Amino acid sequence: MIFSELIVNSVWQNPLLASTNEAENAPIVLAGVLLSLIVIYLASKIGGELSRMIDLPPVLGELLGGVIVGASALNLVVFSESGAAASDSIIMTVLQFINNINPEAVTSIFQSQSEIISVLAELGVIILLFEIGLESDLKELQKVGSQAVVVACVGVAVPFAAGTAGLILLFNVPVIPAIFAGAALTATSIGITSKVLSELGQLKSREGQIIVGAAVIDDILGIIVLAVVASLAKTGEIDILNVIYLIVSATVFLIGSILLGKYFNQSFVAIANKLQTRGNLIIPAFIFAFFMAFLGNAIHLEAILGAFAAGLVLDETDKRKELDEQVKPIADIFVPIFFVTVGAKVDLSVLNPIVPENRAGLIIAAFLIVVAIIGKLVAGWSVFGKEGINRLAVGAGMIPRGEVGLVFAGIGAASGTLDKPLQAAIIIMVILTTFLAPPLLRFAFKQSPEEKEALEKANLIG
Amino acid sequence: MIFSELIVNSVWQNPLLASTNEAENAPIVLAGVLLSLIVIYLASKIGGELSRMIDLPPVLGELLGGVIVGASALNLVVFSESGAAASDSIIMTVLQFINNINPEAVTSIFQSQSEIISVLAELGVIILLFEIGLESDLKELQKVGSQAVVVACVGVAVPFAAGTAGLILLFNVPVIPAIFAGAALTATSIGITSKVLSELGQLKSREGQIIVGAAVIDDILGIIVLAVVASLAKTGEIDILNVIYLIVSATVFLIGSILLGKYFNQSFVAIANKLQTRGNLIIPAFIFAFFMAFLGNAIHLEAILGAFAAGLVLDETDKRKELDEQVKPIADIFVPIFFVTVGAKVDLSVLNPIVPENRAGLIIAAFLIVVAIIGKLVAGWSVFGKEGINRLAVGAGMIPRGEVGLVFAGIGAASGTLDKPLQAAIIIMVILTTFLAPPLLRFAFKQSPEEKEALEKANLIG
Repeated sequence: MIFSELIVNSVWQNPLLASTNEAENAPIVLAGVLLSLIVIYLASKIGGELSRMIDLPPVLGELLGGVIVGASALNLVVFSESGAAASDSIIMTVLQFINNINPEAVTSIFQSQSEIISVLAELGVIILLFEIGLESDLKELQKVGSQAVVVACVGVAVPFAAGTAGLILLFNVPVIPAIFAGAALTATSIGITSKVLSELGQLKSREGQIIVGAAVIDDILGIIVLAVVASLAKTGEIDILNVIYLIVSATVFLIGSILLGKYFNQSFVAIANKLQTRGNLIIPAFIFAFFMAFLGNAIHLEAILGAFAAGLVLDETDKRKELDEQVKPIADIFVPIFFVTVGAKVDLSVLNPIVPENRAGLIIAAFLIVVAIIGKLVAGWSVFGKEGINRLAVGAGMIPRGEVGLVFAGIGAASGTLDKPLQAAIIIMVILTTFLAPPLLRFAFKQSPEEKEALEKANLIG
Repeated sequence: MIFSELIVNSVWQNPLLASTNEAENAPIVLAGVLLSLIVIYLASKIGGELSRMIDLPPVLGELLGGVIVGASALNLVVFSESGAAASDSIIMTVLQFINNINPEAVTSIFQSQSEIISVLAELGVIILLFEIGLESDLKELQKVGSQAVVVACVGVAVPFAAGTAGLILLFNVPVIPAIFAGAALTATSIGITSKVLSELGQLKSREGQIIVGAAVIDDILGIIVLAVVASLAKTGEIDILNVIYLIVSATVFLIGSILLGKYFNQSFVAIANKLQTRGNLIIPAFIFAFFMAFLGNAIHLEAILGAFAAGLVLDETDKRKELDEQVKPIADIFVPIFFVTVGAKVDLSVLNPIVPENRAGLIIAAFLIVVAIIGKLVAGWSVFGKEGINRLAVGAGMIPRGEVGLVFAGIGAASGTLDKPLQAAIIIMVILTTFLAPPLLRFAFKQSPEEKEALEKANLIG
């Protein structure tokens, strides 16, 4: 009571004190963030445990938990940047009831809260990729490097070509929107696939390293494809300079950071050994990871690529094990925010066939899903090299499109390139590939007996 | 380049798409948060290590590091709610240079970024108090309970009475502002004092537990005092009902949560044992801690009190040790954000005696500081009971005013009760008590040989 009354009063007396207003709303924003985190953690744990009980990867349950608490069902975790209003959010309704806030303040509090949860989710996927980098083995990755390149290139080219051609020939979609939708079929969600691999105890297997390597290259190819189609949609021409810039900067960034990392390694260990206050290892590690993530973001690649590279570099130090142990609980509280948020941002209403508007989208979606799955399975089969590689697993691992596809749909919608049905079709394709991939990947890995063993081991440890 | 160009374009084409605009700015907000965190971590580590080298508690260095990167010097970490503009922030200047953003977007990005860092800092102090609760011993606290109550009451009454009387008699300050400023002298910063105790290895000593217990009670008394003086300043009368509400709710909350906690304990352990996915212990613990923090916030006490109670409750389970270990790295990356932010929000320019405006404030400040220190030392001397209690340490532990005092200054300024010199004097008092307390506390604990030993042990472990 006291704080909220004081806010109202101080603002009335000094209408110009907007900054004070902001400061005085802070306790309510904090309450909203705390409530959101409680809901997110409950959804992730309940979903994850139930998923595990029926022998599916926990991350699938976290995503579904997100769908249930999100915009599709309970409306507990909704986001202003997805177009929700404060009145759509049950959490905001609760806060309004407790704090007696005026409607204008509610909107600004809701906006702050959803922005904060979004950034926490971003930090979650950054920390996830840092951890995946720490768990990956640079030498193993280099060994499978050429195979990963092939998988990535085939996995981008086949769905793109088949999707674009099919949309033009079968559905009479104009060329530019067809190219845009085809492009949305290309990029694998590295976050979801690497989390499932880690849960299956397969991250360090040869298949696992091929998938992670290919997903990283895929992600870069996806960014380049996005730049190409976006400039196509905008001007009708391709901005060759920008494409070259992206290819060069991505290559220099990844290879450069790993080469430089070899020298930085020793300084990192020396610094961590010299520091004597709490956090002597984890704080320098996070400074490095966040710096690399910032760099990835700043050169217009992705923050997660930088975090992954940072993890790879620090995995080469003899602090690896200690660092792994300390990163684990931090990842445990950050990563679920990402997965639940991905689920919560999904709007399942596009799947409702009763709405006539959705039907056209659903038919196109069915086509896109088939192309999305077959395209990546073909990529998996294209792995060359020794016998004994589980090609089905490699293909299945590349299937989830996750947040990358949603970026395409969002930008396509904003620029007016994609009409409603096409946009809905892309979203449906993203949802289904994302939710199908984890059980499919688990099934694929269950095929050979040695991998069954690894799975059982992982269950015991996990 | 691609993203920012796309933003500008999509917004130009669809001026109504405000939510898209928000979503498209997200990568830049993330970059700002990453850069801020890098600066904060660097400041905390460099400050903390230097402080330790000259044998002072690391947290003092973290606070000073914050001052250096904050509004007083480098302007790297500044906050829109403290009245800074985007152009004041060096980080925003860097982002503007990289991303080519328009001025309007810059303001909104800056606001989002400073709000996010503020909430991360709040989560930092919540996690700190949760950890302090985990490290505290409920039985020991109950043993020193009555002593803590005496210390808290004397420590609130003496500075309040002496400060108010002195301002009226010596400086001719009108009654209501004098009461307001006197009230700002009451509340101890539980975050700073408990962190210093933990660093000195004294948290579990009898003195440590008296200080923590007294600081908690102090905090509640401070909230009540704030409610009283705020209603006095507003209407000239005291809202008795509200005061009774606060006293009852605080008592019920603290005692109730500890009593209920005894039953919840067993369910918590049972739940954690049943869960089999990652984070099976830490996620339920954080759900509980955040829920208690939310509850503390919702009944208009403080979030940190709830987090402290949650820590006390979970400390009684046999999962304590495991939980301690997992909370540690999480605290390591969250807590520095709080301390650096406290330092960064301080504006040292009020200390400049060349500005004539500051001089009146400086003289009053000198008086307030003397009262603030002597008042708490008197509180320390008032400890009764067995011989051998280090009363100087207890008094010194109560000295830092920290963020609580700043809340008083802020509300006093917003409501127009405090004039500029008085406001500046309170801020100076807060700064100096906060920065003087850690070395003083260390000095006080160095007095007896057994405590010297504990200190050396702590250094080896820390």
